[in-house]
Amino acid sequence: MKGFARRVAVADAVGWVQSHVRGLSSETAGLGQLAGRVLAQDIVSDVDVPGFDRSMMDGFAVQANDTLGASAYNRLPLRVVGTVLPGTRFSGVVGAGQAVKVMTGAAMPPGADAVLPVEQVEPFDLFSASEIRVIGQVSPGKHVGRRGEDVAGGKVVLGAGRKIRPQDVGVLSSIGVAQAAVTKRPRVRIVITGDELLPAGTRPTGNQITDANGPMLAALVSRDGGLPVDPGIVPDDPSEILAAMRADADLVLVSGGSSVGQEDHAPGLLAEHGELAIHGVAMRPSSPAGMGILDGRLVFLLPGNPVSCLCAYDFFAGRAIRMMAGLGENWPYVERRLRLRRKLVSTVGRVDYARVKIVAGEIEPMAISGASILSSTTRADGFVVVPEDSEGYPPGAEVLVWLY
Amino acid sequence: MKGFARRVAVADAVGWVQSHVRGLSSETAGLGQLAGRVLAQDIVSDVDVPGFDRSMMDGFAVQANDTLGASAYNRLPLRVVGTVLPGTRFSGVVGAGQAVKVMTGAAMPPGADAVLPVEQVEPFDLFSASEIRVIGQVSPGKHVGRRGEDVAGGKVVLGAGRKIRPQDVGVLSSIGVAQAAVTKRPRVRIVITGDELLPAGTRPTGNQITDANGPMLAALVSRDGGLPVDPGIVPDDPSEILAAMRADADLVLVSGGSSVGQEDHAPGLLAEHGELAIHGVAMRPSSPAGMGILDGRLVFLLPGNPVSCLCAYDFFAGRAIRMMAGLGENWPYVERRLRLRRKLVSTVGRVDYARVKIVAGEIEPMAISGASILSSTTRADGFVVVPEDSEGYPPGAEVLVWLY
Repeated sequence: MKGFARRVAVADAVGWVQSHVRGLSSETAGLGQLAGRVLAQDIVSDVDVPGFDRSMMDGFAVQANDTLGASAYNRLPLRVVGTVLPGTRFSGVVGAGQAVKVMTGAAMPPGADAVLPVEQVEPFDLFSASEIRVIGQVSPGKHVGRRGEDVAGGKVVLGAGRKIRPQDVGVLSSIGVAQAAVTKRPRVRIVITGDELLPAGTRPTGNQITDANGPMLAALVSRDGGLPVDPGIVPDDPSEILAAMRADADLVLVSGGSSVGQEDHAPGLLAEHGELAIHGVAMRPSSPAGMGILDGRLVFLLPGNPVSCLCAYDFFAGRAIRMMAGLGENWPYVERRLRLRRKLVSTVGRVDYARVKIVAGEIEPMAISGASILSSTTRADGFVVVPEDSEGYPPGAEVLVWLY
Repeated sequence: MKGFARRVAVADAVGWVQSHVRGLSSETAGLGQLAGRVLAQDIVSDVDVPGFDRSMMDGFAVQANDTLGASAYNRLPLRVVGTVLPGTRFSGVVGAGQAVKVMTGAAMPPGADAVLPVEQVEPFDLFSASEIRVIGQVSPGKHVGRRGEDVAGGKVVLGAGRKIRPQDVGVLSSIGVAQAAVTKRPRVRIVITGDELLPAGTRPTGNQITDANGPMLAALVSRDGGLPVDPGIVPDDPSEILAAMRADADLVLVSGGSSVGQEDHAPGLLAEHGELAIHGVAMRPSSPAGMGILDGRLVFLLPGNPVSCLCAYDFFAGRAIRMMAGLGENWPYVERRLRLRRKLVSTVGRVDYARVKIVAGEIEPMAISGASILSSTTRADGFVVVPEDSEGYPPGAEVLVWLY
C-alpha cells in the first residue's frame, strides 16, 4: 500500500518496447492462408506473365503493314486463315494478306504483329466470315500485350515484410507460387489474475465480478496478428502466477495484480526471476502498468481495471505483438481530425487516454470515464490521446481522434 | 463479337445492389468467436456490473462524518476492525470511529459510506496497523463506485447490427453472456471459368496462364465477412457453368466469360434461367461486368481480366457481401485526401478506377494500368475513382485516394 516511486514517461516505455522486440522466425503458408500475413521472403518470379505475346482485344491478328491506308472509303480485304482462343495456339504463320481471328488473351499467332479490333473490320457477322475488309489501320504492336508485361521473370514481385493483399495472392498464384514463407504469429500467453474473478461469460453473483479482460485481450491479440493462448484465471498465488508466466509462449500478458498493493504479485515475481524494466507509467488510466523480460520473453503487466487494461495493451503490449507479427507498430484504428464540442481537461505530467463520442461530426468527451467502466469504451466512438505536456484543449480545437 | 448495346451507370448498378441485397439469418457464436462479427440481437443485461458498491481506491472504508475537520494538524484516530479484499465481504457493520481496510474493487462494508485513500492516512505501514490517523477529510460517497455504474441491469448494452469490438467482448463477458446471435457469414460460391486457365498456384506453361482471380476473390470474400466456397476452375461448357452457378451458396461470383463474345456463356445462362439485370457498366476497367438473380440468389459476373475482376468485385459484389454480412456497404479501405503530382486523365461518360502510387505524400498515377496487369494493383498504393462527369484532374488538385 504505497505509491510508485517514479512513473516512466509513455514515450520512454514505448521506446523500451521498440528496442526490445525481436522478430519471429517464419513458417510456410498455402495460397489460401496468405492474405493478411506478412511475407518473410522476397518473392522472385521464375516465369514471365504472360508467358507469350497476347491479343488485348477481340479481333484479328494481322501484319500491320496490310492495314496501311485502310478506311471506310478504302476497305482492304484480308483472308481469315484461322482462329486462336485463349490457351490454344495457331500452328501456322500469318502471311501478307492474311488474318487470324483472336480472342482477348489469346497468344499472338506467329507472323502477325498487330491486332485489328472488331470495330475496324467488316462485315459484322465475323464468326463465319472467311474474308474480312479492314476499315481502319493499326501500327505494329497495336493491341498486343507483350510477354512479361505483367510480371517479368527474375524480378522481385513482392518484398519481404509486405502485408499480403488479396490482389497479391492473385499475383502469387499467377506466377505459380502455391505457398510462401510468412512471419509466424506470436503466441501470446494471457494470464488472468484475481481471486475475485469468475470465469469469462459466467453470470456475476455476490461480491464477485466476471473476468472481462481475458476475452477482450484474446480478441485484441487476434486483431494484432497474434495467437492468444488463454489458460483461464490463475489463482492469486505467487508460484501459480510464476508458472503461468513461464509457460510456453512468445510473449506474456498478465492482467491484474500489476500495482504495488498486497496482492500484486506479478511485478515482484518479474523483478525476482527476470527483469522488471518499467513499473508505473505517467498516463491515465493505466498508470500501474509494467513491463519486463522473463526467460528471454517480453512480459507486460496490465492493470486489472478493464479500461486500464485496454489502454496499456494498446500503448505497449499490442505494439510489441504487431511488431513481432511484422505488421508495424501503428495502431489499427482509423484516425480523424475533428473539432471538440467541449473542453477536454488533462493534467500536465501525464498522458491522458480520453474516450470520446462523435456528435454531429464533432468530438464530445465522455462524462463517465473511470478506469473500471469498460462500457465507456463501448459507448465511445474512439479516444483522444492528450500528451503529457498539455493541459488539454479548449472547445473548438481540432484534435486527432482514433476511432475504435 | 459485338459491343454492349448500352452500359449502365455505376451509380445505377450500385443502386441495384442496394435494393436487391437481403440480410441473412443469424447463428450463435461463443465469446471467443464474437469479435468482428455483427450482432443479430440486442443484448440486454440482466445483472448490474458491479453487482455491489465498491471501493475505487486502496484505502479505508469509513463513515465520512468521522473525517470532518481532519488535517495534518488535526489527525483523527480510527480503529481498524477488518479487511475486505476483492471478491470477499465484511461480515460486520462499520460503526462510528471505525475503519475497514479495503482494496480497489472490494465491496464496500455495510455502514461505511466513503473511502479514505492511503495518502490521507497515517502511519505508512498500514498492513499491520490496528489504528490509523486520518489527515484528510472525505465526503459521503467519495471513492465509492456505485452498483451498476458500469452496466445497469435491464438496459440494452449493445444493439443489434453492431460490429463487435474487442472491448465489447469484455463487456459481454462481464454481464455473463457466453454466446450471442450474430449475422451469418454469406457463403460465396466462386465460379472460375476459362479453359486457358491452369489451377491456382501452378506454374504457367505454353500458351496457358494460371488462375489469379480464384485465390484473389477468396481473400476478398474473407476480408468482407463472407465464407468463400471455391470449386476450382469450371470448364467452358454452358451446362457445367450453369450447374456451378446453381450449387448451394448465398451469393455467386462468376469470373471470366462475362462479356459478349463467343465463349462468354454466363450472361446468356443468367438471362435464360434467371434475370440478367445489368450487363455492361460505364466504367474502366470492368465494363463487361454484369449482375442478376438466379434461383433467388445474387449472381455477379466479373470480367476475367484480373484488374477488372478486382474492380468489379469492389464496386458491386463486395458491397453486396458486406451488406449481407451486416458490415455495411462502405469499402474497407482507408481514405486520404492528397494532391496529384501529375494530371490524371479520364473520359467523360464513364467512371475510371485509376491505380496510383503515393510519392512524397502526393499522388502519382501509374503509367501501366491495363486491365490485365494485376501487378499494377500490387505496385500501387491505392486507387482514385474519377466520376463519370469528370475529364480528370490537373496537377496539384486534391483528390480522394483509397489505400489498398
